[in-house]
Amino acid sequence: MERDEKDYLEHCLALLKERGVTVEDIADCARYLQSGYHHSLKTEELCLSVLKVLEKREVQFAVMTGIALDKAAEQGLLPDKELEGLLMEDAPLYGVDEVLAYGICNTYGSIALTNFGFIDKDKYGIIRKLNEAGKGTGRCNTFLDDLVGAIAASAASRFAHNVEEE
Amino acid sequence: MERDEKDYLEHCLALLKERGVTVEDIADCARYLQSGYHHSLKTEELCLSVLKVLEKREVQFAVMTGIALDKAAEQGLLPDKELEGLLMEDAPLYGVDEVLAYGICNTYGSIALTNFGFIDKDKYGIIRKLNEAGKGTGRCNTFLDDLVGAIAASAASRFAHNVEEE
Amino acid sequence: MERDEKDYLEHCLALLKERGVTVEDIADCARYLQSGYHHSLKTEELCLSVLKVLEKREVQFAVMTGIALDKAAEQGLLPDKELEGLLMEDAPLYGVDEVLAYGICNTYGSIALTNFGFIDKDKYGIIRKLNEAGKGTGRCNTFLDDLVGAIAASAASRFAHNVEEE
Amino acid sequence: MERDEKDYLEHCLALLKERGVTVEDIADCARYLQSGYHHSLKTEELCLSVLKVLEKREVQFAVMTGIALDKAAEQGLLPDKELEGLLMEDAPLYGVDEVLAYGICNTYGSIALTNFGFIDKDKYGIIRKLNEAGKGTGRCNTFLDDLVGAIAASAASRFAHNVEEE
Repeated sequence: MERDEKDYLEHCLALLKERGVTVEDIADCARYLQSGYHHSLKTEELCLSVLKVLEKREVQFAVMTGIALDKAAEQGLLPDKELEGLLMEDAPLYGVDEVLAYGICNTYGSIALTNFGFIDKDKYGIIRKLNEAGKGTGRCNTFLDDLVGAIAASAASRFAHNVEEE
Repeated sequence: MERDEKDYLEHCLALLKERGVTVEDIADCARYLQSGYHHSLKTEELCLSVLKVLEKREVQFAVMTGIALDKAAEQGLLPDKELEGLLMEDAPLYGVDEVLAYGICNTYGSIALTNFGFIDKDKYGIIRKLNEAGKGTGRCNTFLDDLVGAIAASAASRFAHNVEEE
Repeated sequence: MERDEKDYLEHCLALLKERGVTVEDIADCARYLQSGYHHSLKTEELCLSVLKVLEKREVQFAVMTGIALDKAAEQGLLPDKELEGLLMEDAPLYGVDEVLAYGICNTYGSIALTNFGFIDKDKYGIIRKLNEAGKGTGRCNTFLDDLVGAIAASAASRFAHNVEEE
Repeated sequence: MERDEKDYLEHCLALLKERGVTVEDIADCARYLQSGYHHSLKTEELCLSVLKVLEKREVQFAVMTGIALDKAAEQGLLPDKELEGLLMEDAPLYGVDEVLAYGICNTYGSIALTNFGFIDKDKYGIIRKLNEAGKGTGRCNTFLDDLVGAIAASAASRFAHNVEEE
């Protein structure tokens, strides 16, 4: 691949920011997932873990794809109007958003998957905000909330593995 | 395969019962997972869904394998004493128990995976009991609690899909 | 969901046809995957299995999403030009196309995944045609060839399980 | 975890060796998977990648679990005689062996999964030897051949990603 991988990290950080998500927002979700095990964890300690997850090429491609689908639906650009309808209403049984999320979590092992399942149902912090902002507002966050959950879940799992190993 | 598939369903139900788990216990977990969407659901309505999940060959083989590992560890029969130690202490980063659980959930789609992640962390009902009974008691439930969570998550997902389709 | 599920099956069949793929093409790939086990299988015998796979909602949503991405890339409609470039060149490490394909195969169990891996590398029949037609021609089949492989792999696995059970 | 992770790497290498598998055997399979892309690759270049895969805790636990099941079946130690029968005959629809293999591949992304699917069906090198040695000989390699395939597929995928990034 001729493109520079670093570009995609910055590209993804810019895409997330444009959609209202900061690294700190995601790190706060990761901290929440770890709070049962490490009581005095600070969000800053997890920011690095979030960035490490976002450095992975597979994660970057999932983020780019999901956000492009959200934006294309919002702007009426999708060639399939049936699909556009499903994305705009965040249809609960659509499931492809979660398939992309699992693609991210899988690369961090089974604990990341469990973390994702929990936070996807519990909808903590920015995930709740994104989910609510994407309901009947002309805004589409169908993929974004799951991507954020998956990155947070992966960052929490990554952090847990590293702490155990020390 | 020359063996009769029905035998494995009965075989699995007998294995679960022997380890202290009934179909109703699993259906209660599935009901809990659906309670946010269908408030007046009764456990009985989910028993059929649990049985349908248990009729699947892939589920039966996962159940048989996981329970055999738990029992072999308990009885000191495993040829690998390192592994036996990990299973007896239910080491949090072991992860193979969750890999088997995901093997079950995967066949019911992305919602089943999310449900599993939630109940695995939340530890409702029989899952909490199994988890606690398997800590430092000479009893090994390392695989069993995850298998039960996966069957409940799959049964809840199966139920949700069928209700939506009606 | 208020939409009729039947619509999506017809919708998906129309999308596949529009992109140059028939049920027979997919059934031919499924037959190829089973040919080592059942020598005299005919393509027609696998058409029903392909249709059964395509009736699954999760499969339909994956097909709709992947084809919409291919078409949007082709027509220059994607809001992310970096992503558009990756899709148009069918970048080998992109991987999200395969994540969608695994989302389909997962619901048919581990044998479907193995079948997909084989045919994705071996590139039999329509899969080879799609792959070649999508290289530097202004045509984008980045998702389509993997979706077809996944449906064929699932149909072959579904067929194998049913034959074994008889 | 109080145990030293290094021990598990040596422990796994010893288990593999005892079952007739060397790092070179696995690296040869990884080389085969990459041979279409890098014609003059040598097995030695892939040995390091195989070792890196085997350093991962999730991989080690899968290896230990699968080999323990193979050995326990062989020695008649499994508490479930139905399961023991399935393992001894390497029943084609058992599938839990592949679930463990996918647990390994998943952590290396979608290309590792595709590689596994291919080599699992193609049965190159040591994988073919293990598969044949485990058929009706009193020897059980039901898990081992899939574990070796998964490690080779992951090592090949890891190598491909690193070469692309250079």
